[in-house]
Amino acid sequence: VKSTKHTVKLSPATHNDLELIMAWRSHPNIYHYFKQQNAPLTWEEHSGFWHRRKNREDFIVELRENGAWRKVGTINVNNLDSDMPEIGILIGELTLQGKGVGGQSLKLCLDWLKIFGYTKAKAVIHTDNKASQQIFLQAGFKPDKKESTKEWHCLIYEK
Amino acid sequence: VKSTKHTVKLSPATHNDLELIMAWRSHPNIYHYFKQQNAPLTWEEHSGFWHRRKNREDFIVELRENGAWRKVGTINVNNLDSDMPEIGILIGELTLQGKGVGGQSLKLCLDWLKIFGYTKAKAVIHTDNKASQQIFLQAGFKPDKKESTKEWHCLIYEK
Repeated sequence: VKSTKHTVKLSPATHNDLELIMAWRSHPNIYHYFKQQNAPLTWEEHSGFWHRRKNREDFIVELRENGAWRKVGTINVNNLDSDMPEIGILIGELTLQGKGVGGQSLKLCLDWLKIFGYTKAKAVIHTDNKASQQIFLQAGFKPDKKESTKEWHCLIYEK
Repeated sequence: VKSTKHTVKLSPATHNDLELIMAWRSHPNIYHYFKQQNAPLTWEEHSGFWHRRKNREDFIVELRENGAWRKVGTINVNNLDSDMPEIGILIGELTLQGKGVGGQSLKLCLDWLKIFGYTKAKAVIHTDNKASQQIFLQAGFKPDKKESTKEWHCLIYEK
């Protein structure tokens, strides 16, 4: 019997992944939910963002299907100099959205944070992005009404 | 004085480029000009297409800027079993379009065909895609009125 369960792992994003991440970030279905972007990126913007990153880790989300691993998205953790890092998920393979890969990556990311002693995490999600809010709620995040605005839902995780 | 001239090279596309090519092919500004696609791809469609390819070469277009090479698109040659292979260009880094990279890749691709003894080539371009038609015209392709339709412009190259 062939298992239909997806298998997900993270790997550190490297300079070699920049073109792929740029292509994902340049899709309107994705940047629609970003704070500061309303068009495909230029290389300057994208590599500038990459090299200016601080207190942040970027992981590639890899999925195993039919015996082979492939890169399907990224998950990043920001504000690692605070006690409440902020998590962002991007499933770049659009036709894979809604299949649980985001939730599985988030769990791995929370495990990673735990290993390094963090007990809290945060996510700020576009109001329209119901699917992403759902992923964070299912992982145990709670809405933070006080920090939320009309456009941005804030969710908090506490172990 | 810093040269502002772009430098372009081709490299054989490999299995490791599949996710990047998929991300490029899944952008609406790109698949708008494709014959058979009106939505982001599934992995099955994409890897299926890859493994079913025959008589075809796919190259990655690489661009050198500020001392570093990066992958910006693909160029492919189909019907290599005929005397008139068909060329397709895809500049995946959208903000790079209109800067001559497509034209430079096409020249390299025509050189490649020449090396292997081909004297003719063909392109079939969506009527709306004026920029691409321009690239082929500038490289010496001539419109083939007989083979063109309302939706598809056919261009022919003969050495």
